[in-house]
Amino acid sequence: MNNSKKVLLTGDTPTGRLHVGHYVGTLENRVKLQDEYDTYILSADLHALTTLSKSPQIIGEHTRQVLLDNLAVGLDPKKVTFFVESAIPEIYELAALFSMYVTHSEALRNPTVKDEIKMKSLGDVFSLGFVNYPIYQVADILCVKGELVPVGVDQLAHLEQSREIARAVNTAAGQEIFPEPKPLVGRIGKLVGTDGNPKMGKSLGNTIYLSESKEEIERKIKGMYTDPKRVHVSDRGTVKGNPMFIYLDVFGTDQDHPTIKDFKEKYVEGKVGDVEIKQYLIGVMERLIDPFREKRKYYEENPKLVDKIIKDGNIKTREIVVKTLDEVKTSLKFFS
Amino acid sequence: MNNSKKVLLTGDTPTGRLHVGHYVGTLENRVKLQDEYDTYILSADLHALTTLSKSPQIIGEHTRQVLLDNLAVGLDPKKVTFFVESAIPEIYELAALFSMYVTHSEALRNPTVKDEIKMKSLGDVFSLGFVNYPIYQVADILCVKGELVPVGVDQLAHLEQSREIARAVNTAAGQEIFPEPKPLVGRIGKLVGTDGNPKMGKSLGNTIYLSESKEEIERKIKGMYTDPKRVHVSDRGTVKGNPMFIYLDVFGTDQDHPTIKDFKEKYVEGKVGDVEIKQYLIGVMERLIDPFREKRKYYEENPKLVDKIIKDGNIKTREIVVKTLDEVKTSLKFFS
Repeated sequence: MNNSKKVLLTGDTPTGRLHVGHYVGTLENRVKLQDEYDTYILSADLHALTTLSKSPQIIGEHTRQVLLDNLAVGLDPKKVTFFVESAIPEIYELAALFSMYVTHSEALRNPTVKDEIKMKSLGDVFSLGFVNYPIYQVADILCVKGELVPVGVDQLAHLEQSREIARAVNTAAGQEIFPEPKPLVGRIGKLVGTDGNPKMGKSLGNTIYLSESKEEIERKIKGMYTDPKRVHVSDRGTVKGNPMFIYLDVFGTDQDHPTIKDFKEKYVEGKVGDVEIKQYLIGVMERLIDPFREKRKYYEENPKLVDKIIKDGNIKTREIVVKTLDEVKTSLKFFS
Repeated sequence: MNNSKKVLLTGDTPTGRLHVGHYVGTLENRVKLQDEYDTYILSADLHALTTLSKSPQIIGEHTRQVLLDNLAVGLDPKKVTFFVESAIPEIYELAALFSMYVTHSEALRNPTVKDEIKMKSLGDVFSLGFVNYPIYQVADILCVKGELVPVGVDQLAHLEQSREIARAVNTAAGQEIFPEPKPLVGRIGKLVGTDGNPKMGKSLGNTIYLSESKEEIERKIKGMYTDPKRVHVSDRGTVKGNPMFIYLDVFGTDQDHPTIKDFKEKYVEGKVGDVEIKQYLIGVMERLIDPFREKRKYYEENPKLVDKIIKDGNIKTREIVVKTLDEVKTSLKFFS
């Protein structure tokens, strides 16, 4: 790893396999930037307990699947450091320290926390860990002194919090221990689900996974929500907000653009059917996902290699985090 | 250390030197039980950030002073394991995990948290770490599988929470990883301050420290609050609630009881002056504190010995906590 490179940190909470929404939200950025940045990708497995505290034994398998997804899309373990959060206890000590520099009411004002409480109708039944979650993310970022963080739009507030905490702790420490990390938002903040729901999510059953088989992709796109007011091919259709066209715009490459343009023109005139366009979209999605299958298969067939990637990454990352924590404690003159 | 002994865990948040209220609240129990229990005493230095986040550099020195107080009152480092919380990152990982098994509203209902918010008029300006504090205490206790915890009455709720969390995590883990710790309340829950304030505290300026000089003890007891309605020796005095008599009852030994009984009788009849009784109380307090001075002096003059006591304790404790965390993660099938 070249130390003159800037540090990029990002990761996933392993609650299930990753989907095409994750790809355009963050994964494609990771792949694009892996040469330019000293890249760390974590699996925030303890975070997954915020939703899986009653069935925690599934989290380990999710962690493996999410790692396979990252490898499948083209992240190179020779360039990128993968690690599992729970393997690095020092992250939680940093988080505990950081939690002394955030007010409780600030933590509750975090928009992601507020949104999730609302969206999942949690009322006042949510764990203390759920409220702490953004602070663990701040610790994930700052523990390796992350400077660039590819995130979804819903996580911009966490990034702002990480900058505030970095400043507060630097002030208390009397030295510049932490950088102020900058976000990198993916080109698509939120990808619409195959059912037209503005958010794609496992629990909504409207996802296309990165590990999907060709048959499943066909089935899902054929059943995709389009323009409900259009019954016959000859009916005039609406392009705007139509998931079928959103997917074409998002996943189509330069070579697809003329065809997509043509489809759009014909669609509003009632001159092309959903079936024909969906068939084309299946091809577009297949072109994206097919190369992932081969890489995924390679790593699936070599589980010990995957174990080693994580083990090596954990060791390397922990060395850095131990140093970071030590710097903080030394500057605070802790006795130990 | 004999492994057939039960584990006792207790400790102090290093916000300043310990006083005679701490002695009757918990320290004398620690001394009494150090042979019978496998005893662990921690300095919860990161907790001290809940009040000292703006001046954290003082905490290290407080940690040393509190350790000296523990050694001064007769805790034997050959029998007892001393450790510093911040030296054991695994405690914070356990706490993070535990925080997934406590609801946010439960955490806010904690009476100590509620009392402190009220007492210190914090309104809604308190840190997230302050709300997390009781969970860190639970992790302190459970990390070494503590079974007996000498506490003040104000911490009984933390103990109840530690039992609830032990049960919840054992259930999720599918095995009995954690015992359900029991509290041992000191014989004096809360010692009145020298000014008559029901609580003794540094910020109230009404303390008698365990490291107090003879001159200071004399000065503080001579200025002690007694019965404000009594002006002349011949006035009838009130014994009940009178700090002077409370201290005599608390710190007097069997040999003092006849004299104390006599003083009380004469006091209500207006036949003995405050000065005489206070002089006697000075003798009682000196008998308690004088032996502490010699031990304290010995350790103060051997700072490297103190460093070694902590270093050895940190290493020994960490080995245990690493195992505990590993048991939890293995039972939860975490991937790492």
